[in-house]
Amino acid sequence: MRYREMKYSFRNDYSEMCHPEIMTALIEAKNEQNVGYGLDIHTDNAKLLIREKLECENCDIHFVTGGTQANVSVISYALRAFEAVLACESGHINVHETGAIEATGHKVYTVKGRNGKLYPSDITKSLKYHQDEHMVKIGMVYISQSTEIGTVYTYDELRALYNCCKENNLYLYIDGARLSSGLAASDVHFNMLKDLCDVMYIGGTKIGMLSGEGIVIFNDKLKPYFRYHIKNKGAMLAKGYVVGIQFEAAFKDDLYFKMGQHENELARFLSSELKQLGIPMLSESPTNQIFPIFNKDDVNELAKLYEFEIWEEVENQIAIRFVTSWFTTKEKCIELINDIKNLIQ
Amino acid sequence: MRYREMKYSFRNDYSEMCHPEIMTALIEAKNEQNVGYGLDIHTDNAKLLIREKLECENCDIHFVTGGTQANVSVISYALRAFEAVLACESGHINVHETGAIEATGHKVYTVKGRNGKLYPSDITKSLKYHQDEHMVKIGMVYISQSTEIGTVYTYDELRALYNCCKENNLYLYIDGARLSSGLAASDVHFNMLKDLCDVMYIGGTKIGMLSGEGIVIFNDKLKPYFRYHIKNKGAMLAKGYVVGIQFEAAFKDDLYFKMGQHENELARFLSSELKQLGIPMLSESPTNQIFPIFNKDDVNELAKLYEFEIWEEVENQIAIRFVTSWFTTKEKCIELINDIKNLIQ
Amino acid sequence: MRYREMKYSFRNDYSEMCHPEIMTALIEAKNEQNVGYGLDIHTDNAKLLIREKLECENCDIHFVTGGTQANVSVISYALRAFEAVLACESGHINVHETGAIEATGHKVYTVKGRNGKLYPSDITKSLKYHQDEHMVKIGMVYISQSTEIGTVYTYDELRALYNCCKENNLYLYIDGARLSSGLAASDVHFNMLKDLCDVMYIGGTKIGMLSGEGIVIFNDKLKPYFRYHIKNKGAMLAKGYVVGIQFEAAFKDDLYFKMGQHENELARFLSSELKQLGIPMLSESPTNQIFPIFNKDDVNELAKLYEFEIWEEVENQIAIRFVTSWFTTKEKCIELINDIKNLIQ
Amino acid sequence: MRYREMKYSFRNDYSEMCHPEIMTALIEAKNEQNVGYGLDIHTDNAKLLIREKLECENCDIHFVTGGTQANVSVISYALRAFEAVLACESGHINVHETGAIEATGHKVYTVKGRNGKLYPSDITKSLKYHQDEHMVKIGMVYISQSTEIGTVYTYDELRALYNCCKENNLYLYIDGARLSSGLAASDVHFNMLKDLCDVMYIGGTKIGMLSGEGIVIFNDKLKPYFRYHIKNKGAMLAKGYVVGIQFEAAFKDDLYFKMGQHENELARFLSSELKQLGIPMLSESPTNQIFPIFNKDDVNELAKLYEFEIWEEVENQIAIRFVTSWFTTKEKCIELINDIKNLIQ
Repeated sequence: MRYREMKYSFRNDYSEMCHPEIMTALIEAKNEQNVGYGLDIHTDNAKLLIREKLECENCDIHFVTGGTQANVSVISYALRAFEAVLACESGHINVHETGAIEATGHKVYTVKGRNGKLYPSDITKSLKYHQDEHMVKIGMVYISQSTEIGTVYTYDELRALYNCCKENNLYLYIDGARLSSGLAASDVHFNMLKDLCDVMYIGGTKIGMLSGEGIVIFNDKLKPYFRYHIKNKGAMLAKGYVVGIQFEAAFKDDLYFKMGQHENELARFLSSELKQLGIPMLSESPTNQIFPIFNKDDVNELAKLYEFEIWEEVENQIAIRFVTSWFTTKEKCIELINDIKNLIQ
Repeated sequence: MRYREMKYSFRNDYSEMCHPEIMTALIEAKNEQNVGYGLDIHTDNAKLLIREKLECENCDIHFVTGGTQANVSVISYALRAFEAVLACESGHINVHETGAIEATGHKVYTVKGRNGKLYPSDITKSLKYHQDEHMVKIGMVYISQSTEIGTVYTYDELRALYNCCKENNLYLYIDGARLSSGLAASDVHFNMLKDLCDVMYIGGTKIGMLSGEGIVIFNDKLKPYFRYHIKNKGAMLAKGYVVGIQFEAAFKDDLYFKMGQHENELARFLSSELKQLGIPMLSESPTNQIFPIFNKDDVNELAKLYEFEIWEEVENQIAIRFVTSWFTTKEKCIELINDIKNLIQ
Repeated sequence: MRYREMKYSFRNDYSEMCHPEIMTALIEAKNEQNVGYGLDIHTDNAKLLIREKLECENCDIHFVTGGTQANVSVISYALRAFEAVLACESGHINVHETGAIEATGHKVYTVKGRNGKLYPSDITKSLKYHQDEHMVKIGMVYISQSTEIGTVYTYDELRALYNCCKENNLYLYIDGARLSSGLAASDVHFNMLKDLCDVMYIGGTKIGMLSGEGIVIFNDKLKPYFRYHIKNKGAMLAKGYVVGIQFEAAFKDDLYFKMGQHENELARFLSSELKQLGIPMLSESPTNQIFPIFNKDDVNELAKLYEFEIWEEVENQIAIRFVTSWFTTKEKCIELINDIKNLIQ
Repeated sequence: MRYREMKYSFRNDYSEMCHPEIMTALIEAKNEQNVGYGLDIHTDNAKLLIREKLECENCDIHFVTGGTQANVSVISYALRAFEAVLACESGHINVHETGAIEATGHKVYTVKGRNGKLYPSDITKSLKYHQDEHMVKIGMVYISQSTEIGTVYTYDELRALYNCCKENNLYLYIDGARLSSGLAASDVHFNMLKDLCDVMYIGGTKIGMLSGEGIVIFNDKLKPYFRYHIKNKGAMLAKGYVVGIQFEAAFKDDLYFKMGQHENELARFLSSELKQLGIPMLSESPTNQIFPIFNKDDVNELAKLYEFEIWEEVENQIAIRFVTSWFTTKEKCIELINDIKNLIQ
């Protein structure tokens, strides 16, 4: 059997198993017997805790194991056959889900947006364009908090977007794959979300859990028989309590929110140090993904020391992506900064 | 927060987290960084180990997180739009997946079968019935080993079935949700499977893992771009190494096979003790599911002491289901027998 | 170029173009310009006429070009992803649409039924069987009037069935591919249908039109945005007026109903003459399909003279199908009877 | 019953029933009996005639009743679940089919193109962008001849595009809704098409038939069981001979090609007269759609006299669309020109 030496990785936030407190919770349950399919006491507790933090008793919560599953389950439930979901061109459902939404029969209609974000004018323009039965009907708006390029919606932006959706009879869905990081970097608090969208998911895979995402449904119209739909989409887990236990642990003492704060702090530290070194950034990201720009030789050298993602070419230079996670330490960030210093001097 | 007292459960084989050796493997990896999406070294090792046990170097292996996901991924990949999969009426894809196969566009064409099993005559009759383009074309045959009612295919039965499939240009697919138990109860050995089907999955969720199923593709026609298909079906796990680590542990020292043997032994023990008490059985099951028949009052009393499934009414009596797992102990089986003795005397 | 001599055909009711009055209506419109997509005046008139005959002002009517299109459009509109349609095993959507319903994502759940018909007990048993989210949810009941084997529902049967559907929150859908023939043979009148189902289609292809089926929606829940859905299913015709003109002609002077009466009269004539010759029938069909049973040699001889369908083997004999249409004449029926007389004597 | 006065229409090429020769062919067959589902002699003859004109014996031909049906049938047959079709943003399948392609599970991936046309660089860029299994795989390229905005591919353009497709293992599919007009305006001849694409459809609805499109499959890989697929998509017509008769008539004496020439001549006449009046055009279209630009008042006045389509706003003016068809006469074009002259003077 082979074992691979791996460089320290800033590639993404799903390279490490799970936060120690979550692992502990799993270990503690190792001799339990639990009912299957998410009908267990841990899942119940996780739902109670999330509802408490949301200050919302009436939302429905369902756990699935991955972001694409969450997106597929929610979007295909909400839309009728002839309806499309509106998203940014950079939206995860448009780019990085191998047509999973279309596989359930729905067009992902995209607009350019700005900084990875949609604005009310994007919605109204899209609606105006789709005038009759020869074109799809827009039924839902999909956004991410934080976005695929690390930006966040402010409260005012989200409020305006949701108002626009309500005026136009559209569902607003928030993909919260990195919700913890998004919340820690914006003036949108967790308990405000119930008034800012119809449905969202609380990402676990990218926020310190083995796997698991919690779909939260605020709008009553999206609630009936949702468990049937999850099962129909292959997203119902027999050992649902494995996800329930993790969300129970993550929401018992604000661990979920602390992980996002930790990520953001380290990313901001990295970002400010890099700027001091004169390294330009592709974008202003206040969250756990940052996009410094290096020349090609430096990228090649850096790649001998660290794992990271090549993002895109920028005028003969290369933007790369560093991602911090619950696992990332300040020490490793300092090492990285020092290695970069040596490299560029 | 509420905590629920739970009676000891013989309800199913997914009530308990995972075998201690598998938990240990997960804990050991807690400080690792691994590449995502199943491209990590643990997943590689798991594949190597499975190929070794199969004595088959050329099969493709892909891990997903649930049985329905595995079935959906395999069946919808293999079939063209107008093709159907043939299954027993009792087949899991027909009864208990909430139309997940149909949701990908394919009819599940069913025949009655015998003892939960299909026979070559079922196939040839089905083919004869589907004569032209006004009817679906049968493209794949779906069976389970062990079956949904605990029976197993013998080597000769499986050989005959696969020969029939090959003669008729059909794929044969084995749902191995309980493969370990099925193998331990039949003369079909793991390394024979490469010659007895085109594709199968090795069940982990019901055999001592947190979750995870290993799809094994023998037929070259079913291999190209399968990773795209898994992603398209929402079944690709970002933290794929979490499943990889578990399969690595399960196949390092025959743990996977031992768990099935353990289950079957306890089920046979239960079964023979119950027969000695004069309790009739719904069927002869050599695997980890058994179906004793009690009168209704006894079922009600027993339900105060244990968790189990009500299976079906049988002439004013009730067949219930006991399932054993890696977690079940002989002590608990003896307790159960004693409680039943007290009950019926 | 080759031309084929064809024997006189009793094979089906779609072997001949269209009734002369319908052809005349088409020819009269040959120099018109009409708006596309069914928004023309002829289509409007056809809808008015149908609503008048139905004595129902509030139903929505949409024309498509084939029965499978109508079935696909209606069923996939009415059902949510995890819902199934209940049908007889012999139902057209189950047997003869090459999985078109499943291709839109829905299971066709079947029961045996009696004489090609469903009864309330079939519904209640099916509902009882589907208990939780691991199984599909029955959302709609599909029946045909007349049925695939020529039988018809009486008013009382249909009333009981629809009541049962309403009590159980199910849609009832009538496939009226041969509605004209079905109505002419039962005590169900056209204007009763509004109170006996939620949606139906009025078959044109098998009742004297070039092609075209009129979907009639009584239940308000099935109305919104239905045109979008038809387009999404590829069933919206650019030259919708071609179908509109035909339905206008068929409903102007009861032609639609007369064609069914004509068919049934000739089928009954055939049927009674054959019985007088001592020829047994597979079933009692009061509509335009009859199923006499002959020995194999006679079938072979008859096949030299006429086109007809081989239906099924019945104890070493063969049931064949004769179908009458608007085109069939009494003279040809007498010829057929005489040829059969000569054959069997 | 109401009857509507209609202004003379230049709105589109499907406002009129069918060419007199096609109507005659239909009338001549009115007393025939024909086999159903396109297995009749007329359909056979139509196929023979088309193959002769294509100088291609080995292509498969299938008739369906509408363009969306043809597109859905071909594209969903050719692509695997995770594959997308590449099209221009202006492509009919992207804009005007209400998500019908996505409804069969496939993403329509779009690029801007130029003048409604795709170029090899569009393909290679798209392929470069789609790198791994997290993104859809491009499997087919969709183009229209003529395009949605009236332009045409030259032989060299089409040759380059097809070569690019072959080098990259992609299918090239030509939507020929207006093929006759496209051919009459380009140096691509009908008999060249067999070497310039894998599959195409010959449009009938927009070229003088009641309805009907002829799918022509050149690539052997796209042939097996295609009839099953058509039926599965609800696109198989019981009275297939109704379409067969029309294509037989259209291809017997080059009528199909003459109709396109007629359309283009009148459109060119209109176009050159309008230019002489100093009216600007949105684009240079050599086919039967032209796009003159008027000020808003003139458009309103013209709309009192003629039916036409509002296309788009162009700097406070409005581009409208005139479409000519087999039905359009030179007299009516002259009338239109005169009315415009009066209007703008």
